[in-house]
Amino acid sequence: MAERAHALSTIDGYSGYGAEQGEKKLRAAIAATYYADLGIEDSDIFVSDGAKCDISRLQVLFGSNVTIAVQDPSYPAYVDSSVIMGQTDLYQQDVQKYGNIEYMRCGPENGFFPDLSTVPRTDIIFFCSPNNPTGAAASRDQLTKLVKFAKDNGSIIVYDSAYAMYISDDSPKSIFEIPGAKEVAIETASFSKYAGFTGVRLGWTVVPKELLFSDGHPVAKDFNRIVCTCFNGASNIAQAGGLACLSPDGLKAMQDVVGFYKENTEIIVETFTSLGFNVYGAKNAPYVWVHFPGRNSWDVFAEILEKANVVTTPGTGFGPGGEGFVRVSAFGHRENIIEAARRLKQLYK
Amino acid sequence: MAERAHALSTIDGYSGYGAEQGEKKLRAAIAATYYADLGIEDSDIFVSDGAKCDISRLQVLFGSNVTIAVQDPSYPAYVDSSVIMGQTDLYQQDVQKYGNIEYMRCGPENGFFPDLSTVPRTDIIFFCSPNNPTGAAASRDQLTKLVKFAKDNGSIIVYDSAYAMYISDDSPKSIFEIPGAKEVAIETASFSKYAGFTGVRLGWTVVPKELLFSDGHPVAKDFNRIVCTCFNGASNIAQAGGLACLSPDGLKAMQDVVGFYKENTEIIVETFTSLGFNVYGAKNAPYVWVHFPGRNSWDVFAEILEKANVVTTPGTGFGPGGEGFVRVSAFGHRENIIEAARRLKQLYK
Repeated sequence: MAERAHALSTIDGYSGYGAEQGEKKLRAAIAATYYADLGIEDSDIFVSDGAKCDISRLQVLFGSNVTIAVQDPSYPAYVDSSVIMGQTDLYQQDVQKYGNIEYMRCGPENGFFPDLSTVPRTDIIFFCSPNNPTGAAASRDQLTKLVKFAKDNGSIIVYDSAYAMYISDDSPKSIFEIPGAKEVAIETASFSKYAGFTGVRLGWTVVPKELLFSDGHPVAKDFNRIVCTCFNGASNIAQAGGLACLSPDGLKAMQDVVGFYKENTEIIVETFTSLGFNVYGAKNAPYVWVHFPGRNSWDVFAEILEKANVVTTPGTGFGPGGEGFVRVSAFGHRENIIEAARRLKQLYK
Repeated sequence: MAERAHALSTIDGYSGYGAEQGEKKLRAAIAATYYADLGIEDSDIFVSDGAKCDISRLQVLFGSNVTIAVQDPSYPAYVDSSVIMGQTDLYQQDVQKYGNIEYMRCGPENGFFPDLSTVPRTDIIFFCSPNNPTGAAASRDQLTKLVKFAKDNGSIIVYDSAYAMYISDDSPKSIFEIPGAKEVAIETASFSKYAGFTGVRLGWTVVPKELLFSDGHPVAKDFNRIVCTCFNGASNIAQAGGLACLSPDGLKAMQDVVGFYKENTEIIVETFTSLGFNVYGAKNAPYVWVHFPGRNSWDVFAEILEKANVVTTPGTGFGPGGEGFVRVSAFGHRENIIEAARRLKQLYK
């Protein structure tokens, strides 16, 4: 990235407005690295300034007159962008849900995968796997069911795979590993959690040509129009960083980063299990989802913050299904993780 | 920017998710550089990845149920984002306009400023000054009328000042130079045309606390919600570039860049006037708006492209009011501008 920044000050290295969809080389590298043999082409890849931004651009694509389903709990941007776009009814304080959103409860009781036979049809299904906050990765069998459910209902899945590189078992790392997914799914992904690019801002979204609206019009054509009208491409310097990430050295460095945080995850898991807590997630994600049965998640958050000076995230920040849980993140320096573990053991011994 | 990129690889210099509204230092530098004595505070500044992106975020803020007015001709993003948000009726082929948009004709006959007494009220008024493509900068008197018009009608002005540093005369460089503007206007701006940041992606939008919706709710609060939900801030490396731009050396470099393109503009103006064409703009903008009375602007564009191998932009690309004009851009290497001038003199001698 430093080289690219320097090059911008030279006649040969300067570049102005680039392709809104991203630089060709980077689109090709993403397709080759993450979607080889999955039938995804370079031109299906839209490089972006991050998954959060693309989720909102997708919401602009869908408009205000659609129904959506989300995992409960899930990353708040799906619900919040839905509210902003005017897709929802009013907030219902008693159930802590917005009207006109289908909350698909995902908890230990159902293996963190909804019983789809009880889920009503919606136009759009947001599905994050590995899930933030629960850390649960859907299995091949579960995703096959999800794709069939979407196909049967004429729904579009927005599949958020921002944590895919954290998968340790044989869970699919892309929805497009599932046969037929290209006709029902969009996938959004990010360099944030692989290369520490949260502040650099770089991600991508895959909109396969095979995905059509019910009138036969390709979704990618409309998304391309939105990308060109509402976005001018990710920073060229950040895109140079993306290309570096996908070089052999970069891939190795990202794997090392992911491996480091997975070691942190193990420390966190060991800490809470040794204290007798049930923990979930962790295996395929940088998050540990810790159960405090019967307790208010904000109370637990406050207790840990005030008594151990450790920051967690209250589960209900991700939806009513997060009640009784806190999310513990593995993103931290090793010495801080070890110190947090020590204090938690003190607090809950 | 190279330094910041390098710093990201160090423990002390690494930064992850920043404030969605931009880094404090940069917000302060923008406020101090461009809005000193105008009553704009650091916290009114929202740093962005460019004006185009902020225009769409503003459209998401306004929603589908508003009416808009645009200058005709104008930068296409206002109309296109309005269409995408569903604010408009169908395209009317005969007049080359979308229904439910008020096109405020701006041409030589009215000094490129609309007769506001003939303009119906709309909720939102997009106003670009200096204008892309006509190069016209509105005078203090004209902007005072515009602010009064908006105030009388309860309209919000979205003022695009992306070319403000190109102003040579005493036209205001910010809408906030007009008394009362803080109660009716949002201003969006960019580093693209001052520092060649078109590919780096950095701009800002000013939403003054004084700007309220009709129910008394501050517009800035809702815009902040959208920025936090639909955007995660501009790239930290690009923000370092913005800070460098606003240092004494950076300001001098930007003034040099602007001065260089203004010399290009003079060459283009001399070329067309020597050939007997009427030209507009130029004085306060990097664009020359050349009149080809009675001719179709796409035909002129094709003629210049095919016979002189020079690229201009057909006026109707900016709205029906651009018929009979082409926009000639001063953004180019000096030798290319001189060569283009030579060929144009050959073509139209």
